[in-house]
Amino acid sequence: MKGVAFGVDKQLKIYDITHEIPAYNIWEASYRLYQTAEYWPKGTVFVSVVDPGVGTDRKSVVLKTKTGQYFVSPDNGTLTLVAQKFGIDSVRQIDEKVNRLKGSEKSYTFHGRDVYAYTGARLAAGVIDYTQVGPLLESKVVMIPYQAPELKNGELSGNIPILDIQYGNVWSNIDSGLFTQLNVKDGDTLCIKIKHGEDLKYSGKAPYVASFGDVPDGKPLVYLNSLLNVSVALNMANFSAKYDVHSGPDWSISLKKCK
Amino acid sequence: MKGVAFGVDKQLKIYDITHEIPAYNIWEASYRLYQTAEYWPKGTVFVSVVDPGVGTDRKSVVLKTKTGQYFVSPDNGTLTLVAQKFGIDSVRQIDEKVNRLKGSEKSYTFHGRDVYAYTGARLAAGVIDYTQVGPLLESKVVMIPYQAPELKNGELSGNIPILDIQYGNVWSNIDSGLFTQLNVKDGDTLCIKIKHGEDLKYSGKAPYVASFGDVPDGKPLVYLNSLLNVSVALNMANFSAKYDVHSGPDWSISLKKCK
Amino acid sequence: MKGVAFGVDKQLKIYDITHEIPAYNIWEASYRLYQTAEYWPKGTVFVSVVDPGVGTDRKSVVLKTKTGQYFVSPDNGTLTLVAQKFGIDSVRQIDEKVNRLKGSEKSYTFHGRDVYAYTGARLAAGVIDYTQVGPLLESKVVMIPYQAPELKNGELSGNIPILDIQYGNVWSNIDSGLFTQLNVKDGDTLCIKIKHGEDLKYSGKAPYVASFGDVPDGKPLVYLNSLLNVSVALNMANFSAKYDVHSGPDWSISLKKCK
Repeated sequence: MKGVAFGVDKQLKIYDITHEIPAYNIWEASYRLYQTAEYWPKGTVFVSVVDPGVGTDRKSVVLKTKTGQYFVSPDNGTLTLVAQKFGIDSVRQIDEKVNRLKGSEKSYTFHGRDVYAYTGARLAAGVIDYTQVGPLLESKVVMIPYQAPELKNGELSGNIPILDIQYGNVWSNIDSGLFTQLNVKDGDTLCIKIKHGEDLKYSGKAPYVASFGDVPDGKPLVYLNSLLNVSVALNMANFSAKYDVHSGPDWSISLKKCK
Repeated sequence: MKGVAFGVDKQLKIYDITHEIPAYNIWEASYRLYQTAEYWPKGTVFVSVVDPGVGTDRKSVVLKTKTGQYFVSPDNGTLTLVAQKFGIDSVRQIDEKVNRLKGSEKSYTFHGRDVYAYTGARLAAGVIDYTQVGPLLESKVVMIPYQAPELKNGELSGNIPILDIQYGNVWSNIDSGLFTQLNVKDGDTLCIKIKHGEDLKYSGKAPYVASFGDVPDGKPLVYLNSLLNVSVALNMANFSAKYDVHSGPDWSISLKKCK
Repeated sequence: MKGVAFGVDKQLKIYDITHEIPAYNIWEASYRLYQTAEYWPKGTVFVSVVDPGVGTDRKSVVLKTKTGQYFVSPDNGTLTLVAQKFGIDSVRQIDEKVNRLKGSEKSYTFHGRDVYAYTGARLAAGVIDYTQVGPLLESKVVMIPYQAPELKNGELSGNIPILDIQYGNVWSNIDSGLFTQLNVKDGDTLCIKIKHGEDLKYSGKAPYVASFGDVPDGKPLVYLNSLLNVSVALNMANFSAKYDVHSGPDWSISLKKCK
């Protein structure tokens, strides 16, 4: 993919966001784009290829957000979270008659290299402009359902979109704005429940603190992560491994002040 | 290695092809170069350091292919597949008296950094031209033997050079040209055998299809991969893990139409 | 982090040294900087974020070495080995009122992105000069204690700072200068002891050789690694795994000529 992009324009700046998304995990791809995109400038072109449906009739698209960034991806749910966060300016289907690496017409299985890297590089390099990607589609993308963050009867609920995997920390999609409404003070104890579908996987208490060092080694804590979302962890230990808690659209978490 | 290259010329474009080749696996190095080189422009300099024979008398060379790319590598078999695919224009031995990082003369163990990255960077940056690499050798490189693809009595045979490891898909070296001669139509069932040396490791049937989604989850399929080579996989599952099938010069596969 | 740096200056050259340091392993971070820094030009800005103390009162600093390189890091021991090797020109504390990504003030947990990548990029791009990093501190950094290399009564002692992990080779901090004083000739047999704290983990003999191929497969050898430090390995096998030998400030090794 990098060779194809380099072949389009040798001055292109190409950076890796991640190569560690588990096979077929569209949800995690969606989250990694959501998590990182705002730190890149307007005009940045993102290429994402988590594509279990390659060869089916899922569409290859470029999403332009209202914030002026471009996302080249199969329209298979990968764009769920960036579409919600940044808003959809428009969506175009890639015209593979034009935007496909020459000589690759017979290959049915590596759109990432032959279509997505190629189209992304041409767009980033200015070889084509956005209108030349292909025809305009309706301004929507395939959306994956999940528990949206909410505060009801003094209880916060949300989804676990991702783990901070190296450390086993559990990240939620509950942002600091909603959390503030629960009126939790530093050191307050929270009662936490984590479910996989309808199965209760964890139930416990932990203080809300500003940093890991505020609790002893091995003890649980609630904190705001680098995205300012409510998260749960063990200081110097692995919450996910200890309690068999994972992430995805079907994982949910709730928190309230303990009585 | 990147620091050394950057020190030669701060404007050099440096890209990683892979850092995931298992220790000492010359065959896989050979395949990764074969798989990716054609997607990079003429003049590209590749540096490859899979070097179990470091410190022995294996030669350090630069291969120039007939397609005008350069490969800096120990001459230990790594160049087998690019030499066959692109043809040998010429081979030069690196003159370490000239092409060696200053101050590194006493180090006997990291040619990758002190000689290969340094020479590759100087060649790519135009600090030296190809003739300045060192003396011309005979136009040949060390070759690793393996089952070449062939069609005989209605049966295709070939080698398994590599797995698509994240998914466990089994790739062969049988190209679409040869496959076409077997006259297989979409949906036809193929009888497959996979051997490690003389040991039969798998025997089964699978349809030839254009995409993974054409068979149910967990079922086998035969398809043409991103290099247009015949490949075998399970839809949404891991063929390699399920059947203990791996890759290397001593793995072979055969396919024919089932009667 | 790369997006933040790219946003500071789109022409910056950004390279990864490693993303494979185990969680919280400050010692290994220290060694990776020590190992690679000299191969990068004067003026290079290194950003290192192994930061178990994030949120505590550990300082965020930029170390300028006497060799004219800059290291942006928490002052938590990460700078131990580069400070010793290259010497301290000066140390400045990062003034987070100035050198912090706009809009990130509310985030307590990702200094790597909001402060270190941002400050490192601004310094590398010339947006700020070194004096604008923040106030001068005393010319010292937090140091991790470990066994310094020494030769006493015909026995060399030292620390095991790191493994050559893919191969399981054991690297020491005993340099070739000290080793030369032991007056070992090629092929001489050395008696080796390896300890974890006070526990003897390995005791054995191996010849000093110039290359791995000088001993049979599976046999131990003593050699000078790519940093010209004394190292122990098994040819084509994994010394670390076989003998349960690891690395860190509390691992030590001794070698002497066998009688």
